[in-house]
Amino acid sequence: MIRFASLVELSAACLDLPAGDDAAGEEIARREALLTKPPRSLGRLEDLVAWLARWQGRASPRLDRVEVLVFAGNHGVTAQGISAYPAEVTAQMVANFAAGGAAINQLARVAGAGLRVIPLSLDQPTADFTSVPAMDEEAFLAAVATGYDAASREADLVCLGEMGIGNTTAAAAMAAALFGGGGMSWAGRGTGLDEHGLARKQAVIDKALARHADVLGDPLAIAAVLGGRELAAILGAALAARRQNIPVVLDGFVSTAAAAPLKKLNADALDHVLAGHVSAEAGHRLLLDELGLPPLFDLGMRLGEASGAALAVLVLRAALACHAGMATFAEAKVSDRAG
Amino acid sequence: MIRFASLVELSAACLDLPAGDDAAGEEIARREALLTKPPRSLGRLEDLVAWLARWQGRASPRLDRVEVLVFAGNHGVTAQGISAYPAEVTAQMVANFAAGGAAINQLARVAGAGLRVIPLSLDQPTADFTSVPAMDEEAFLAAVATGYDAASREADLVCLGEMGIGNTTAAAAMAAALFGGGGMSWAGRGTGLDEHGLARKQAVIDKALARHADVLGDPLAIAAVLGGRELAAILGAALAARRQNIPVVLDGFVSTAAAAPLKKLNADALDHVLAGHVSAEAGHRLLLDELGLPPLFDLGMRLGEASGAALAVLVLRAALACHAGMATFAEAKVSDRAG
Repeated sequence: MIRFASLVELSAACLDLPAGDDAAGEEIARREALLTKPPRSLGRLEDLVAWLARWQGRASPRLDRVEVLVFAGNHGVTAQGISAYPAEVTAQMVANFAAGGAAINQLARVAGAGLRVIPLSLDQPTADFTSVPAMDEEAFLAAVATGYDAASREADLVCLGEMGIGNTTAAAAMAAALFGGGGMSWAGRGTGLDEHGLARKQAVIDKALARHADVLGDPLAIAAVLGGRELAAILGAALAARRQNIPVVLDGFVSTAAAAPLKKLNADALDHVLAGHVSAEAGHRLLLDELGLPPLFDLGMRLGEASGAALAVLVLRAALACHAGMATFAEAKVSDRAG
Repeated sequence: MIRFASLVELSAACLDLPAGDDAAGEEIARREALLTKPPRSLGRLEDLVAWLARWQGRASPRLDRVEVLVFAGNHGVTAQGISAYPAEVTAQMVANFAAGGAAINQLARVAGAGLRVIPLSLDQPTADFTSVPAMDEEAFLAAVATGYDAASREADLVCLGEMGIGNTTAAAAMAAALFGGGGMSWAGRGTGLDEHGLARKQAVIDKALARHADVLGDPLAIAAVLGGRELAAILGAALAARRQNIPVVLDGFVSTAAAAPLKKLNADALDHVLAGHVSAEAGHRLLLDELGLPPLFDLGMRLGEASGAALAVLVLRAALACHAGMATFAEAKVSDRAG
């Protein structure tokens, strides 16, 4: 059974989203004003707690159960020579995740988060989208459904990331189709392309945009035709989280591009989403600007695997600890203002 | 017994500093290249581990013992009406730290760090530096010595922060004296000054610069005449850490200004220092630029208390966990590059 029987049904779900809990957010702001610090002196830490409250739908937000979901997929477009690593690395890294040897294993542990890695038909790469759609509707909807069902309903926060050799090309193609600008604006060096590789990647993206020009008016068609299974799963997971009161932290360029069609369909659809960081991949800052998502970090990272999202959990925990643990001016008998 | 008998003796100590351990830093870089990720894809996380190794002087850096030191002092310049809060708040907040109710209590706990709060003669504010030196040489050297002796020799990392009503005025005056530009360039709103208060603060700084113009060629004299006890202690602690192979994380504008004279005396003196964040206080970014210290975070915080430095510990732990815990390409049987 596929959760969404058609793009039309999925599109309808994207338009039917719960709003945030204003009262919970306001309750946080009220308490912040009582705590022993100058008003707003914890800056974004204060905003993060209000955001958690608003999208968890409770005035006492918690981070007891944080889940990191890493979706993995393979990409037919690797035949065009757009990655510094061979396609086998996707499966090899999935094995590395299982063995605990990747960066995200360490970061999830430090962040006190559970890690789930979900490979999506690694032995069936998407088609090469320079000549045909990456996925047909059925394959796309199946991947979206996998993502939709991946997050536990009991999660307090979900971090979304990916692994997939070739997927920065898919992400850049999607970003170009959604926001304009072509391969030159959106292609980056991925895992480490040289100048020639970068030029080839730009040309591959432009070829794909021209090939599929007739369907690029539909954000979900863009995700099916130019995306990949792991990107579709991220879209599904971000959608499911919204419908289940779970705030989401997105990782880097690929994860952000994967979720971007939701925003095109519904301007409010990513209000429950935090950008964990801005990566060093060329198009990420531009994409975050387009989506109105200010990143929490800028550390020059470009690994994927939800690594930047997991780091953001550390800051969220710190923010919540301040809000929950600090004394009020009255409790601590500290003078509030001179006047 | 005072550790430094004169400004000349202190100055000599600032010029006699150990270099970093190049071999340890290079060993880190060699291992980074073997780990299962594209080269440099963890960005600044990789640099942070090398920095820890270099300044701890060992190729296997650790963060077993992290200390947060918060120095507190009072300032005669508060008589000029340059703070939104009354001077009593310094002592009240020291009590709040002791009771566990402040932001830094929560942040140090989350960061797995010990917290020590060191009040410096709170019942004896420094003199109002618009008319006389804030401290005489003896008082300044005593405060430096308190800071020098505060960090444990066994610490793996020290975070330095402060509490002191009025101390952003002292910090701005020091920054102006060290780097030029006057009150307009360096004064910020501190804990929450309005427009009139900000203009007054700028004028107070300019008055102090004019009053003490004859001694402002000497960085340590600047710290004595325009600084404060908690700032002097931070200078002493940063110096002691360097001489004991302990890397330092600085907090915000005040902590950075406190350590800045070291850099003026010796261009290498802050190489063991990481800027935890750039605060919302107006002059901080400019000051970090002057010192060549790129901040780790920009979260709009402006609390002090070592809050931004404690947050940075979370990232350092994450960076170290990746370096220490990740598998190599060979161990994980992951293909390295296409070529």
